[in-house]
Amino acid sequence: MINMDELKKMAGIKAANLIQNGMVVGLGTGSTAAYMVDRLGERVQKENLAITAVSTSWSTTLQCRRLGIPLKEIDEVSKLDMVIDGADEIDSQKNLIKGRGAAHLLEKIVASMTSNYIIIADNSKKVTVLGEKMPVPIEVLPKAIGVVIAQIEALGGKCTTRLGSPGKDGPIISDSGNLIVDAKFKNIPNPKVLDSALNSIPGLLGHGLFIGMATKVILATPKGLEEF
Amino acid sequence: MINMDELKKMAGIKAANLIQNGMVVGLGTGSTAAYMVDRLGERVQKENLAITAVSTSWSTTLQCRRLGIPLKEIDEVSKLDMVIDGADEIDSQKNLIKGRGAAHLLEKIVASMTSNYIIIADNSKKVTVLGEKMPVPIEVLPKAIGVVIAQIEALGGKCTTRLGSPGKDGPIISDSGNLIVDAKFKNIPNPKVLDSALNSIPGLLGHGLFIGMATKVILATPKGLEEF
Repeated sequence: MINMDELKKMAGIKAANLIQNGMVVGLGTGSTAAYMVDRLGERVQKENLAITAVSTSWSTTLQCRRLGIPLKEIDEVSKLDMVIDGADEIDSQKNLIKGRGAAHLLEKIVASMTSNYIIIADNSKKVTVLGEKMPVPIEVLPKAIGVVIAQIEALGGKCTTRLGSPGKDGPIISDSGNLIVDAKFKNIPNPKVLDSALNSIPGLLGHGLFIGMATKVILATPKGLEEF
Repeated sequence: MINMDELKKMAGIKAANLIQNGMVVGLGTGSTAAYMVDRLGERVQKENLAITAVSTSWSTTLQCRRLGIPLKEIDEVSKLDMVIDGADEIDSQKNLIKGRGAAHLLEKIVASMTSNYIIIADNSKKVTVLGEKMPVPIEVLPKAIGVVIAQIEALGGKCTTRLGSPGKDGPIISDSGNLIVDAKFKNIPNPKVLDSALNSIPGLLGHGLFIGMATKVILATPKGLEEF
């Protein structure tokens, strides 16, 4: 029996192998993306692959530095040849929920810089309707937390401000200095409508619904890799 | 001949006089709002008016403290009885461009907390079509500046990152720690469509188009006050 980590690693390696010499690539954050970054580091070291990477978090930046993957800041680059990232839920239309690692604000910015946005995941992430299991992670300006939560709840999302870092009392703070709210909807039959409703809430700085952005999904299943 | 400052003051005093005992009010930022806050401070001192205010900027917070107006943080309050603010352009539908003072992110959050959003201005701010004179001020996550500007320019907005503080080299930083981009559109015949397009750009944290938010405009003209 293949376990979930082995599936994640399969997808990560497959995606890292798509990267070609000379590319400028965006690298996502999370456990599946980390396997992809590991393999990319191996290729940079062993094949002398000449690439430049743009990172979506402190976490991925530190991993790239450790592996010797050359980095540029997001604002040094205007277009990316490819972006590879994980996801927390994926539907058949390649719409996503992302943000379990609180990196979705930068991840969406980086995703908007490419026409080649590849998602890697194990098959537990595939859902029929978005929101089945996962809440939508939402980045909120700290001063606006009350009114933003009120407006998300008016849309049907039950909100929890994300706590849980054993190394820090109180709420988690994102890499951009904001709060993270997890908004659980019963399910999200029309993610495009919710995307647009969330976008219009003042003080809501970013959210984990990625609609119409992914161009390819590489899904690792116990029977092998599936692409769609 | 009445000058512009006298007109601003007329509108500011009129609006401050609308505030009633016991109200929780949101206070905007800018030269016209400052006249309103001055008059409110006078009422608190002389009439013992008991109100609580929520401020939209450091600038307004400092003015309130100086005048003895009791303050709460935005996140201590869920609803506001009234919000009074200025604007840089106003059309006949009460749609606005705001943000010359870079306070529009918090101003929009505070505006979203009331069903009684009153705009005060001198009559030079009234326009036939939004964008005639003013650019749309946009708050941008610093790391995303390049890609956000590229997407605003694709929508037809000519972008300038706001400089000009003699007290600080480089760009202006907003009260929330971000950059301000001024996006000049030729004009904005359909502000609702542009509002929604801007809202969907990852890394664009807030913008100065306030569509369908204002409930009343108090416009000071050389012939007296006009309301619509």
